Amino acid sequence: MARETPSARPISAQSPTDDAVLAGYRKSIDNIDAALIHMLAERFRITQAVGAYKAKAALPPADPGREHAQIARLRALAQDAELDPEFSEKFLRFIIDEVIRHHEKARAKG
Amino acid sequence: MARETPSARPISAQSPTDDAVLAGYRKSIDNIDAALIHMLAERFRITQAVGAYKAKAALPPADPGREHAQIARLRALAQDAELDPEFSEKFLRFIIDEVIRHHEKARAKG
Repeated sequence: MARETPSARPISAQSPTDDAVLAGYRKSIDNIDAALIHMLAERFRITQAVGAYKAKAALPPADPGREHAQIARLRALAQDAELDPEFSEKFLRFIIDEVIRHHEKARAKG
Repeated sequence: MARETPSARPISAQSPTDDAVLAGYRKSIDNIDAALIHMLAERFRITQAVGAYKAKAALPPADPGREHAQIARLRALAQDAELDPEFSEKFLRFIIDEVIRHHEKARAKG
């Protein structure tokens, strides 16, 4: 059956595998990915509010001290969770780049 | 006071800002970032198990159909959460690249 719009159902329900073990892993990955997407959506809602607030309150857009502290904290959290600290830093950088992109877009809009 | 190891306490407690509104936003961002790091740690625990299982069960390491379905699903979830669908796809690609890096490392070791 053709579907025009992609479904938000877990992929495990859309393209089941005959392998029950693999299907179980995939269900967990799909659940975690949905959580990640919603966490990221909320994070960008907040950084957009921060951008608007900083502009209104005439606060500087960047805060290198804060960014440095964020990186150190995430690396420590990653270490405790047995996630590669290098990756946690790369991840924060990936997110911050997107935040900067949003702020630039907002500025261009006026 | 000098500290040798970075603390996992929220940054808001480490470098408080005089601006209460901004401090509140930062506390929320720090909480979300901790959640993201732990979710990512769990996701990589699962993909590492998947890699080991696929090797043992002689299943192919890549599954392009699954990846395509994951992208479509995350884009739909992002749209509902008012997150840029382009970003959600870029994010999944970023994560999958790291998974591939892990698998390559595991193969080189084994």
